[in-house]
Amino acid sequence: MPEEIKRFIEYFSKIPTLGPRQTTRLAFYLADLPKKDLTNLLKVFQGLENIDQCPQCFFIKKRDENLCRICSDQSRNPYNIAIVEKATDVITFEKIKKFNGNYFILGKLAEKGIVDDELKKRFKKLHNLIDKKLGGRVEEIIIAISPTPIGDFTANLIKKEFGKYTPKISRLGRGLPEGAQLEFTDETTLLFSFEKRDYN
Amino acid sequence: MPEEIKRFIEYFSKIPTLGPRQTTRLAFYLADLPKKDLTNLLKVFQGLENIDQCPQCFFIKKRDENLCRICSDQSRNPYNIAIVEKATDVITFEKIKKFNGNYFILGKLAEKGIVDDELKKRFKKLHNLIDKKLGGRVEEIIIAISPTPIGDFTANLIKKEFGKYTPKISRLGRGLPEGAQLEFTDETTLLFSFEKRDYN
Repeated sequence: MPEEIKRFIEYFSKIPTLGPRQTTRLAFYLADLPKKDLTNLLKVFQGLENIDQCPQCFFIKKRDENLCRICSDQSRNPYNIAIVEKATDVITFEKIKKFNGNYFILGKLAEKGIVDDELKKRFKKLHNLIDKKLGGRVEEIIIAISPTPIGDFTANLIKKEFGKYTPKISRLGRGLPEGAQLEFTDETTLLFSFEKRDYN
Repeated sequence: MPEEIKRFIEYFSKIPTLGPRQTTRLAFYLADLPKKDLTNLLKVFQGLENIDQCPQCFFIKKRDENLCRICSDQSRNPYNIAIVEKATDVITFEKIKKFNGNYFILGKLAEKGIVDDELKKRFKKLHNLIDKKLGGRVEEIIIAISPTPIGDFTANLIKKEFGKYTPKISRLGRGLPEGAQLEFTDETTLLFSFEKRDYN
């Protein structure tokens, strides 16, 4: 294979969402495009150079903006904070159109039970945000991270660290997902759906 | 979302191997990279501008090469031709290290039983290649396209069109894939594996 293709596969297959096989298909697809279309994609790609992180919540923002569009939206309530793992989780959460607070992105969970320096820094940022900008008190903290063992561990850490700031600290409810079939439901989910059964 | 991200998702999610959800994750991942790493990826991407198609077999080649590295490899036998659907199939086929001939890429199969203009052009190219460059006679044609109804239809077309050039025109063998479990094997596969049972 020409080295341009090899290099593309080498570099792009390291991206978490792309595997080597998909990257190979991608490289061939792109190489086969009319050069005009490829150049367009290149320009679109280049646009990402204008994006960086919101210093308050770590969501994405345009380079020339101070805060992201969520943090700078005056109609939202900054005393309601949803803690999520990743920036894409914000997008997912916004789709339900029920939450009018701000987000805080952890960037990672406490994998293997370890709170590493990056996670420590984020915790410190959130302490600072609440202490300095919000006056040491918030209305609610929603821990919107995955219901997994690592998520549970991280959620407990968050409760210990940030519980003092609010009377309401919650996690997303657990149970059967929409359309689930009992036959294919794992025991943990079933247990939660049983314990949290709804009498309404 | 900043328009740079929206535009990235809009353009890149049209690429067949990428869905909108994966493209969103990809956009966020790339936007969060250190700018140095993003610029590197951009350069690697740009390298694809130096790639085009081999005029003989339609595999990829560097722009300044006349033929791809397979067609220009003198140690290979051009009178043995494997017909494949896609350029990536060449990569897959080369992995078994058993085939020392050349390839010919169709670009598509006769979907819905229709031989459209693009496919007609490829057929014409292959006629030309065999008639003019190879003297109207080849040793073997291996039809290495998928064992699906569309693949079967296309393979029969190829046999009619190109069978006259060679005493040996074959398709890849059908049967149980390695590691298959009978319980989960579809009936068509099972039927083939029964009909092609091996007494050795």
